[in-house]
Amino acid sequence: MSYFDAASAAPLHPVARQALLASLDEGWADPARLYREGRKARILLDAAREAAAEAVGCRPDEVVFTSSGTQAVHTGIAGALAGRRRVGRHLIVSSVEHSSVLHSAEVFERDGGEVTRVAVDRTGAVTAAGYEAALRPGTALACLQSANHEVGTVQPVAEVAEVCRAAGVPLLVDAAQSLGWGPVPGGWSLLAASAHKWGGPSGVGLLVVRKGVRFAARGPVDERESGRAPGFENIPAIVAAVASLRAVRAEAAREAERLRELTGRIRTRVPGLVADVEVVGDAERRLPGIVTFSCLYVDGEALLHELDRAGFSVSSGSSCTSSTLTPSHVLKAMGVLSEGNVRVSLPAGAAEEDVERFLEVLPGAVTGVREKLGAPAAAPAAQAGPGELVVDSLGKRCPIPVIELAKVFGQVPVGGTVRVLSDDEAARLDIPAWCGMRGQEYVGEEPAERGTAYVVRRVS
Amino acid sequence: MSYFDAASAAPLHPVARQALLASLDEGWADPARLYREGRKARILLDAAREAAAEAVGCRPDEVVFTSSGTQAVHTGIAGALAGRRRVGRHLIVSSVEHSSVLHSAEVFERDGGEVTRVAVDRTGAVTAAGYEAALRPGTALACLQSANHEVGTVQPVAEVAEVCRAAGVPLLVDAAQSLGWGPVPGGWSLLAASAHKWGGPSGVGLLVVRKGVRFAARGPVDERESGRAPGFENIPAIVAAVASLRAVRAEAAREAERLRELTGRIRTRVPGLVADVEVVGDAERRLPGIVTFSCLYVDGEALLHELDRAGFSVSSGSSCTSSTLTPSHVLKAMGVLSEGNVRVSLPAGAAEEDVERFLEVLPGAVTGVREKLGAPAAAPAAQAGPGELVVDSLGKRCPIPVIELAKVFGQVPVGGTVRVLSDDEAARLDIPAWCGMRGQEYVGEEPAERGTAYVVRRVS
Repeated sequence: MSYFDAASAAPLHPVARQALLASLDEGWADPARLYREGRKARILLDAAREAAAEAVGCRPDEVVFTSSGTQAVHTGIAGALAGRRRVGRHLIVSSVEHSSVLHSAEVFERDGGEVTRVAVDRTGAVTAAGYEAALRPGTALACLQSANHEVGTVQPVAEVAEVCRAAGVPLLVDAAQSLGWGPVPGGWSLLAASAHKWGGPSGVGLLVVRKGVRFAARGPVDERESGRAPGFENIPAIVAAVASLRAVRAEAAREAERLRELTGRIRTRVPGLVADVEVVGDAERRLPGIVTFSCLYVDGEALLHELDRAGFSVSSGSSCTSSTLTPSHVLKAMGVLSEGNVRVSLPAGAAEEDVERFLEVLPGAVTGVREKLGAPAAAPAAQAGPGELVVDSLGKRCPIPVIELAKVFGQVPVGGTVRVLSDDEAARLDIPAWCGMRGQEYVGEEPAERGTAYVVRRVS
Repeated sequence: MSYFDAASAAPLHPVARQALLASLDEGWADPARLYREGRKARILLDAAREAAAEAVGCRPDEVVFTSSGTQAVHTGIAGALAGRRRVGRHLIVSSVEHSSVLHSAEVFERDGGEVTRVAVDRTGAVTAAGYEAALRPGTALACLQSANHEVGTVQPVAEVAEVCRAAGVPLLVDAAQSLGWGPVPGGWSLLAASAHKWGGPSGVGLLVVRKGVRFAARGPVDERESGRAPGFENIPAIVAAVASLRAVRAEAAREAERLRELTGRIRTRVPGLVADVEVVGDAERRLPGIVTFSCLYVDGEALLHELDRAGFSVSSGSSCTSSTLTPSHVLKAMGVLSEGNVRVSLPAGAAEEDVERFLEVLPGAVTGVREKLGAPAAAPAAQAGPGELVVDSLGKRCPIPVIELAKVFGQVPVGGTVRVLSDDEAARLDIPAWCGMRGQEYVGEEPAERGTAYVVRRVS
């Protein structure tokens, strides 16, 4: 079995396992107590805090241990917004943040706050200018991920931090995907991360609040973690988290180079191995271990099953693989093809031969799914036919509307149009993407009696 | 070293350790994923949920795993209050709840809610009549612990649940101290608990929300734990928590009897071994492992240090052992002596000889502390002196004001009064308690130029 979904959760690092075992016996007591067991627990916790601070590049008293990365994000955003509520009730996030950031933004909106979602380009990157334009006098906080969790694109954090600093607005960086690779550059104000993304145990998040950043904890708190994260500290897991962060950092430079080469192979070779593939994300500014591509005419869930049967665990941003049946918000914001989407995220230590085997297995898996769906093998030649065709794909899910479009497209003459009626959310993304891949003109969408009509004009 | 502070945190149960180790390799992946590692994690999580439900006596889909008992309480109270906000904004808690409940109540008050704190008797118990009197049309929620964490008193949960049910008000039970001993009786609506109290690992809380209970999660959530506890599930710790709950339950009946006998010895023998001791809590309706007493003229922190040096880890509700320098709110609500307070909470498996050694060591430890403080050995005989004496104890901390009162008390004639000026919060509790123990009359308190004057009349 090759586990290629490290961006969801990395397997426990051997150092984490070792540290966890060692501290189960020393770190279970209440570190607030003065007796021997409490003092031992306190020593472990203090040492972990110092080591975490060193890895992040901050002061130990700026580090708050939380119970997950999600908790760190929720706590950090709520606390920073509350700390600056007198400044204003405006929040800036990128449109490709992790759902924990976007959920926080939605709650803030529901409570009367205003949120600006900064757009990204087709690689998934924001620009400092985008943040600069969004900043305004009432901006309480800006949030930006250090790198995207679905496509691996690295964000210009230092530049965005600089424009935020100039405006006197704190920047919260969600460093969940990158902290194992190195410290986050630039003058950020708050930082959140998650241990199980770097091979630490579940149950540990990291929130860093720089001195001088206004912060008012929301909801009930207690005396733990400087009043910012209530509840008994999970010291064995904290110790294991920090020990593994140090361990992965020690291997980071060499491992980054190795994984970057392996994901580079996938980026380069998949388009040659599989027809009609869009590799997404930035080819240069990207995390070492993540590569993402989408396959036209492919049902993402079926492809994941095929790959799982072949021994590969990967994830997907396709609508059919989400509980809401909508494509990933990241792919949507990038405006790229979402059907047949595959994210490969290699864990540290991923073997070259497994990557090679993946490249061997993938074309057959894609072909199998396409055959089952009756996907057209190639774009048919134009026939003399009616100038407008309507395809009724109502009630049909991704990738069927695109397949049905492709099947009839040969029947309209150059200059003619096809109207695809669809009530599938993915069509809004995938029909324009199909046009881009096929060099046809996407005219636009119109409301229809049921669902939406997506209009495509044949130009060649 | 004898660890007698199980009510804070129990050492890891061997079964928890075993289960944790076993599931570290099987339970690290995302249980929401469809590939093999995800399915394995899901199977472990589902099995843990079923086993937890069986131990609690509820349905598996009523169980929410949280990251701590505190988180379970915070989430449960906030969610239940929000779910019934149209009914009203009134919350009932007992005055001896765990701080996590009281902190939730304070936040609710800050947000405009109203809170009734039900009083307890001198044993720390509420009555169903007390809750009945507090219920009103706008009551959204009532909270009651199953048993008190500081003095071990078992609360009449079933009776209180019955009066709440009759009023249509849900009852949330904080079962942190008792769930390891057995299911909570009665028709409660929500339940919270904490794994590290029964020998499970840190980082796991349990929230149960009965079907039909209105519940609206507050703050940002995600798709995990039925939208009630956001963030990646800590499956290895959850598995360990539930496995150890089953293990301690299997031993509960026998172990309860054994510990009850050991704490009974302490209850019975301490007043004979140490002069001027008040054993607090209910002698009958109590948890098996907890016994709490207070020693007149003793500095709680100094006594804890003495006991730690002698090899005993216990905790205290004395003001000098709290970061706020106020006595425990539980002792305050009970109206009992708070100085020199010691809570002994025996972990499962505590050895009889360790308890016997504690009883041997305690008298010397108390005497040592009293000698250092210059505590009066006995009440001096009355002397003919002025009818009123003033003792200026301003700026002096517990137990000094009571010691100074005792030292001069012999100088006033029967019928005369002593006014103790003090700005120490503990004096409000401990001077009346001293009067009770000495059979003298506590006249009351009056505001003084600085601090408060506590007036005591000599009656014998």
